[in-house]
Amino acid sequence: MGNVISRRQFVIEWAYCDPTGAAFNSRFFEFCDSGTWTLFETALGVRPCDLAAAFGILGIPLVDASARFLAPAWFGDVVELTSQIREFRRSSFDVAHRLMVRGEVAAEGSETRVWAVRDAADPSRIKSQPIPEEVIARFQTGGTSP
Amino acid sequence: MGNVISRRQFVIEWAYCDPTGAAFNSRFFEFCDSGTWTLFETALGVRPCDLAAAFGILGIPLVDASARFLAPAWFGDVVELTSQIREFRRSSFDVAHRLMVRGEVAAEGSETRVWAVRDAADPSRIKSQPIPEEVIARFQTGGTSP
Amino acid sequence: MGNVISRRQFVIEWAYCDPTGAAFNSRFFEFCDSGTWTLFETALGVRPCDLAAAFGILGIPLVDASARFLAPAWFGDVVELTSQIREFRRSSFDVAHRLMVRGEVAAEGSETRVWAVRDAADPSRIKSQPIPEEVIARFQTGGTSP
Amino acid sequence: MGNVISRRQFVIEWAYCDPTGAAFNSRFFEFCDSGTWTLFETALGVRPCDLAAAFGILGIPLVDASARFLAPAWFGDVVELTSQIREFRRSSFDVAHRLMVRGEVAAEGSETRVWAVRDAADPSRIKSQPIPEEVIARFQTGGTSP
Repeated sequence: MGNVISRRQFVIEWAYCDPTGAAFNSRFFEFCDSGTWTLFETALGVRPCDLAAAFGILGIPLVDASARFLAPAWFGDVVELTSQIREFRRSSFDVAHRLMVRGEVAAEGSETRVWAVRDAADPSRIKSQPIPEEVIARFQTGGTSP
Repeated sequence: MGNVISRRQFVIEWAYCDPTGAAFNSRFFEFCDSGTWTLFETALGVRPCDLAAAFGILGIPLVDASARFLAPAWFGDVVELTSQIREFRRSSFDVAHRLMVRGEVAAEGSETRVWAVRDAADPSRIKSQPIPEEVIARFQTGGTSP
Repeated sequence: MGNVISRRQFVIEWAYCDPTGAAFNSRFFEFCDSGTWTLFETALGVRPCDLAAAFGILGIPLVDASARFLAPAWFGDVVELTSQIREFRRSSFDVAHRLMVRGEVAAEGSETRVWAVRDAADPSRIKSQPIPEEVIARFQTGGTSP
Repeated sequence: MGNVISRRQFVIEWAYCDPTGAAFNSRFFEFCDSGTWTLFETALGVRPCDLAAAFGILGIPLVDASARFLAPAWFGDVVELTSQIREFRRSSFDVAHRLMVRGEVAAEGSETRVWAVRDAADPSRIKSQPIPEEVIARFQTGGTSP
């Protein structure tokens, strides 16, 4: 597993919460998305909005997402999201996310994303491409200053 | 005022609701956005995703939005949104929205949008442009079959 | 698997879409949530907002959610969501969701939810409880008019 | 105008952005909501989730919201939201919000909210009530340590 970890603390806003008073589940997937961008910025030293241009890709689209919800995160709770790579494969990778609240795990998530470029044969489609070794290395050596 | 009106009935979903059990205010602005797209489709006979290409514009960006919240729309309520043009000006226009629930007005909204093209002098910026008379006429004559 | 299926057609709104122009992944989880409520209404003949009171439960909280994203659903696309029970267990159940767009599967989702009541021993917590046989039967016999 | 100001810096997330690549307008209303809660916490020293109980109210529901959108806030932009009371009236108040991005104003917003309690005559309804002088004073004297 990559040893670069991104951590972000934030507050559960009123707007995130459903009638139970806790954050609605779809928001957790927004948090995970944000965690992945932050993780890549931490590891690669490239702003999220510059990632595609910096590596000649279209992006890192999500193909699989899952979450286990273990405890509610209430309005006003201060939570901490940690995100790290679980596995790099040839042209896809998994990101593990964990949301902590009041000392316990509120939710665990997993994303599978692909390293994607435009398909030269059909520009309306995208296809995966091998992840550069230098990218993978950055996650394994601790970020932007190996 | 334009006499084309778009009407849409839908249900207040759990995901729209905040801890009070009623739709959170930001969702109403999503509804208004949707109402404007539907209104343009109704009047012009052009799918929202084809609007920019059909008229050689970048879009109809929102520059001003406001809402009055008069009654809550609860989880499960069937609501009806009506949207119509309040006024066309040279290169901008106002859209009036009304959300009805259980026979009363839940919210009233107003959007001001501009008919926008890319600025030839600085392609990173957009600028407004006169709204074609044919577009305005379509809203005044009842839609796609005048 | 239960044989009651809920189907809902709707349009991918501008507000659902991210910078790629397609619906952002978190919205799919909102769609699934809506699909589950609709499915229960179809099977049980009880409005979603009355479900808890009708069965003496707190609700049917989500404990696990997953999705595979197979094709983008673009702004303006008309999509169809189908939702059905995959399995009832003693006090939890799985719901399978499928989002179709332009004749292909845009996304498949799975939710695990529990039949939940307030914990008498600690009212601040919830606990699962056996799903009534009459509830399960309704999903297997085709809904409100068996 | 109250002289307590809340400031919050945050990043425009991918999930906030629409197909233009900039934050969708409804998110700004979420930011304003968050700004108001933060402002009240700053001024009163009470956590948002404890506000209702601390003052014997149901909450501070929004009755009017408006925004002017002046410049786009792009994915990855670091923005700063400032929120402050514009005016306290007998039982309602206005909050002014400003979102800054890259040294310019991205959006200005205004909310009108009421100091609300349950209506004793009809508990299904809410009504406004005079705002306590001690509350107003806290906003004018600089917060929790006057």
